Amino acid sequence: MKTIYLIGIGPGDPDALTLAAIKAMRRVDVFFVLEKEGEGKDSLIRFRREILERHASDRPYRIATGASPKRDRESADYAGAVEDWRKRRTQVIADLIDTEMADGEIGGFLLWGDPALYDGTLQNLHDLIADGRDDVTFEVFPGITCVQALTARHKVTLNRVGESITITTGRQIETGDPAAVTNSVVMLDSRDAFRRLADQPDMDIFWGGDVGTPDEVLIAGPLGDVAERISRTIQDQRARKGWVMDTYLLRRRAPKGG
Amino acid sequence: MKTIYLIGIGPGDPDALTLAAIKAMRRVDVFFVLEKEGEGKDSLIRFRREILERHASDRPYRIATGASPKRDRESADYAGAVEDWRKRRTQVIADLIDTEMADGEIGGFLLWGDPALYDGTLQNLHDLIADGRDDVTFEVFPGITCVQALTARHKVTLNRVGESITITTGRQIETGDPAAVTNSVVMLDSRDAFRRLADQPDMDIFWGGDVGTPDEVLIAGPLGDVAERISRTIQDQRARKGWVMDTYLLRRRAPKGG
Repeated sequence: MKTIYLIGIGPGDPDALTLAAIKAMRRVDVFFVLEKEGEGKDSLIRFRREILERHASDRPYRIATGASPKRDRESADYAGAVEDWRKRRTQVIADLIDTEMADGEIGGFLLWGDPALYDGTLQNLHDLIADGRDDVTFEVFPGITCVQALTARHKVTLNRVGESITITTGRQIETGDPAAVTNSVVMLDSRDAFRRLADQPDMDIFWGGDVGTPDEVLIAGPLGDVAERISRTIQDQRARKGWVMDTYLLRRRAPKGG
Repeated sequence: MKTIYLIGIGPGDPDALTLAAIKAMRRVDVFFVLEKEGEGKDSLIRFRREILERHASDRPYRIATGASPKRDRESADYAGAVEDWRKRRTQVIADLIDTEMADGEIGGFLLWGDPALYDGTLQNLHDLIADGRDDVTFEVFPGITCVQALTARHKVTLNRVGESITITTGRQIETGDPAAVTNSVVMLDSRDAFRRLADQPDMDIFWGGDVGTPDEVLIAGPLGDVAERISRTIQDQRARKGWVMDTYLLRRRAPKGG
């Protein structure tokens, strides 16, 4: 058997790793890194290497890189494009397992945040096994998400008493009913979707760019008052380093006395 | 100034703590424990003490206990009962800060899961400061939630591609529209609310009792097939040790080809 560890490494601070994640890292024989071409994500890969240097044991380990397939973001068929990307990504992982791992070894992926939230690798491994690979098994090690870093830094609760909280995407905020948003966390927005709700009364935003990293920026306030400033901050960060990972909580203020 | 650290300790495995949480613990002068009378929660307090013995440094620290106020669970006025409980709990914390901490010291709460999710202490501190206590400040250190332990142990993703996920309560599942449940995580259900959805077609459940602890039980499958077994397991655990912390993900199966 070949065993794959999906290890959550948190939002970008080496101290956000759990002891379980560090112990798991120390058992890994080969770490897999899927590198995206272009896109200026080098610092993300650097962070993974920093994590390794800081936490891996003296036991030898290898690093094997594969090319992360590009997703067709122009396609009108969103679901089809995602499905195609997912299949190609599963194949890249299958090839890495075939060529870079011996029987009985442990391979590891160091994944941003938590492997269960907005990361495709867990599904890739299910697909691989469903395709008949009975020589592969995997384990999941949770990590702190950028959502948790966001609420910790803003010192807000994720839910309010007795209320639900929805974790969603910028796309859903753009297409859903604005009146239905009372407690929503948005991850991986790339379109400033919060602006659509700027005219909603009683709406607060707790926004973070690169939360939990040295580049962290925090902005909070009534959405109508701060939306413009958040958009400018996103533009500035993109201009400076090519990307920004933003996360935010949209929360409708409770009626007085509520 | 007096500084309070709200430290997330995860769902019940000492290895689920982050390095940041452990470093924070080692700076704490006095740990506050709010003890509930009766209720058989002794093992929860024992776990906090185990965490301390395992991770605290040689530096001396104190433990101060207060009585956790009881919430009136019989009241017809749910919001009012919660509000009253919250005020009394804030007062208990204020008294501990007054009597057990010197100026310049750091007090700490070790909180289950993540301080931002279904724990009242963060709000108690906001209330305290809003009441005019300008000598108190606080910091939040995230922890792995039982939701993350659940998805890791079942090896499922929290969201599906492009979809939202809702974290909610048993009460909401009982009163909401069953057809609206597609991806819902329920925490702190005490009423087997999932049974209400047992006749929904295409609904899977990933259930966990005391996930991430030595008492962990996992059950997954089509809801209609396993609901009865989950209810029996909850009864057995309650009979054996007085309580069970259960968490579950309800997920409607995607249409074929979707």
